[in-house]
Amino acid sequence: MSAVSMLLHKVLQSGLCRANTRCSSSSVKFEPFARIEPVAPNEHNRLEAAYHKDTSPLKLNLSGEFYRNSDGKPQVFQAVHKAAIGVACDEKLSQEPLPPLGNADFIKAANELILTNSAEALLEKRVLGVQTRSSLDALRVAAQFLREKMKCNVCLLAKPSSETYERIFKQVGFQCHSYQYFSEAKGELNVFGLVADLMTAPEGTVVLLDACAQNPTGLDPSVDEWKLISHIIKCKKMLPLLHLESHGLATGDVVQDAWPVRYFAGCGFDVLCAQSFVKNFSLYNETVGQLMIVLGNPKHLPAVREHLENMLLTEKEQSSSVFASRIVAKILTTTALHQEWTHTIKDIHQRLHKMRTLFAKKLKELKTPGNWDHLSDQKGPYLYTNLKNKHLQQLQARHIYIPSSGRINVGALRTNNVEYLASAINDVLKCKQTDTVDTADLTSAHLHALQHFFNAA
Amino acid sequence: MSAVSMLLHKVLQSGLCRANTRCSSSSVKFEPFARIEPVAPNEHNRLEAAYHKDTSPLKLNLSGEFYRNSDGKPQVFQAVHKAAIGVACDEKLSQEPLPPLGNADFIKAANELILTNSAEALLEKRVLGVQTRSSLDALRVAAQFLREKMKCNVCLLAKPSSETYERIFKQVGFQCHSYQYFSEAKGELNVFGLVADLMTAPEGTVVLLDACAQNPTGLDPSVDEWKLISHIIKCKKMLPLLHLESHGLATGDVVQDAWPVRYFAGCGFDVLCAQSFVKNFSLYNETVGQLMIVLGNPKHLPAVREHLENMLLTEKEQSSSVFASRIVAKILTTTALHQEWTHTIKDIHQRLHKMRTLFAKKLKELKTPGNWDHLSDQKGPYLYTNLKNKHLQQLQARHIYIPSSGRINVGALRTNNVEYLASAINDVLKCKQTDTVDTADLTSAHLHALQHFFNAA
Repeated sequence: MSAVSMLLHKVLQSGLCRANTRCSSSSVKFEPFARIEPVAPNEHNRLEAAYHKDTSPLKLNLSGEFYRNSDGKPQVFQAVHKAAIGVACDEKLSQEPLPPLGNADFIKAANELILTNSAEALLEKRVLGVQTRSSLDALRVAAQFLREKMKCNVCLLAKPSSETYERIFKQVGFQCHSYQYFSEAKGELNVFGLVADLMTAPEGTVVLLDACAQNPTGLDPSVDEWKLISHIIKCKKMLPLLHLESHGLATGDVVQDAWPVRYFAGCGFDVLCAQSFVKNFSLYNETVGQLMIVLGNPKHLPAVREHLENMLLTEKEQSSSVFASRIVAKILTTTALHQEWTHTIKDIHQRLHKMRTLFAKKLKELKTPGNWDHLSDQKGPYLYTNLKNKHLQQLQARHIYIPSSGRINVGALRTNNVEYLASAINDVLKCKQTDTVDTADLTSAHLHALQHFFNAA
Repeated sequence: MSAVSMLLHKVLQSGLCRANTRCSSSSVKFEPFARIEPVAPNEHNRLEAAYHKDTSPLKLNLSGEFYRNSDGKPQVFQAVHKAAIGVACDEKLSQEPLPPLGNADFIKAANELILTNSAEALLEKRVLGVQTRSSLDALRVAAQFLREKMKCNVCLLAKPSSETYERIFKQVGFQCHSYQYFSEAKGELNVFGLVADLMTAPEGTVVLLDACAQNPTGLDPSVDEWKLISHIIKCKKMLPLLHLESHGLATGDVVQDAWPVRYFAGCGFDVLCAQSFVKNFSLYNETVGQLMIVLGNPKHLPAVREHLENMLLTEKEQSSSVFASRIVAKILTTTALHQEWTHTIKDIHQRLHKMRTLFAKKLKELKTPGNWDHLSDQKGPYLYTNLKNKHLQQLQARHIYIPSSGRINVGALRTNNVEYLASAINDVLKCKQTDTVDTADLTSAHLHALQHFFNAA
């Protein structure tokens, strides 16, 4: 035993009281957490805090993403409750880890929900699914895979769209550009700006498109417009990534809402789709989603699967909810539960549609300045007001809380508050007309690219 | 309407058949997924594949982390099954999102499980909890928080320890150094090397320590050794981060296994603890863990909580299992379920202990070369063989599959395979003695630091 070993040995044997006392009395107290500064509140927290502080009975929180029923309460899906009990009682369901890509029953049901179970792509075994925590998590997996394994580095995102999209793509090293989606002047989808921006993007660009109920505008391309978009994506050799977030809540019909994904898949594209089971199952705490990849050619499937498995295995602690995936799979594969679920979806859609229509009607009755015709074209859980910050500030003084995006959670509207909201907006806008500028003008580069493309075709 | 708008309008109206046909026929097929190369299998996959291909009735897979009972089957915790049904049937439990730090009932129960409900730190409200997906996820949250918010940049990890630790810390920008933990020559804990390495680390270093059943060695410091370690950490102003992964499986007693965490907290340290509910609840697919932070001073708590909330909100799609957190909370707060759970833990511990003892006994009977005395000091779900790669290769030829870490999953051992394993190891080691070298020697820098420290004290 060396001298030092013996010294340590002696310390161990003698007990540590003396040394302990000496140490704590002689040195300055070490408080590493003292260096932490208070956090500056973000917009969401500021809005929530202001709303909670507001004592007016008129106060109205229109931010957030959670659907509320006509009593302002969370929606309980009876199908979800029944399926949850069924899953918990089923002793055959194992607590063992799932395969890296997730619950196979869930993935099968999720893919069939989008593609239908007789889809060519499924029969030809060129569809791959990855269970994720949410559709945003599916976008994250897709972005990481496309960046690291496919060496893609440019993506196109709608303007406006969820800020999270950009964060997800930038985090893995993508350059993000935007395509025009909304005409502020006309209050409608800017399909010409969209097409022009697709035309001028480089080959191999990843194009993220909301498949239905675009967030935040609620405006979707028509069938013909989707066909034009897909045509350009194909000719320009871009990779479409569709986000199916409010599946069922755009038209009230899950089959119809997934049509753009089926159309892209039917065109023989390599297409990715990030699918959510959050809003349409009211699974807000135990969330689950899926990344579906439809390959044009089945021979690429084994390598793609291996790379995904490998990527997901190295972050295995980031597992998604098995329980939620089992609930969803049980509902989608049990006729009675499936019917009950689609009825609830229809009910929610009807209430959203009714509130939106009522709101548009009130604004028109009041002859509120601005273009409100296209409010009735909007779909899904959000309503896009296109209101500017100064108006939102003035609305806060009237106890109405809307985030700076100008996006309203339609679920928060009820027959007894829509009128108050419409007249408050009317008051605010009549004080002074909005000075909106249409930013959707086409540049000479767009012009050149478009002429070139259509002359060639 | 501009010339280009009119052009696009015309295309939209005319349908796209002509353009579509032209596009797909004239251009080379775009198959972006064709660029994906096959994945090289990793060690785990190679081992699993070799095991599955092996047709011998003797084949024995000793890799993995999942406990198996004496029939080689997954362990079903009746308390977990009962709690799961209770949770699913409870209509009062909401599907609304949890607060950013997670399920408050779960966090309270998890903290009390470690600290006991009469702990000073809890009464003085200086304990904070964050629900995570697992204890590894808790380590990830801790590492990110310590790096980004506390500006820590050096961490000390045991050698050997889980490779994942290093990946987690490096991912957020830590410099990782190792402290000696195991003496290869003696087959025992190298407490002198450990102490010497702590002494020579810079102030403010984050020290990661397994609180019980160290992974992979299964060797834990004694009470006196823990006291010496904590004394040095305190004097050197380091930040202890304890990993409580196999809680209950080291001694069969959850209170005893968490003693080091209570001791550190009792010393007035700022201490972090990553807690797992995976192995000790057999929740292998719906995993849940917690990061507990005990502050020496309660006045730092609000800022620390705000920073954590902020950090976790920006990655809100990475939610952990609410269902599992509710199962754990229900078991820990329901007397009958709690008792049933602790009995199952004791049963598992007994079986692990029995298998380990039997294995050591067989090796001694066979007079297998090497030091096996300390096998009986090892605790928890793993058994550390310290076997070298060439021996592991030779064992594979005898249908025994052990990963290159030399770590055996004790749960995979049964009375009918321990003897075969021991004699196979005996055969392999008797062919040629292992040429182990003790790498635990102290350097002159160690020597200097130690003499300085103890002369001062």
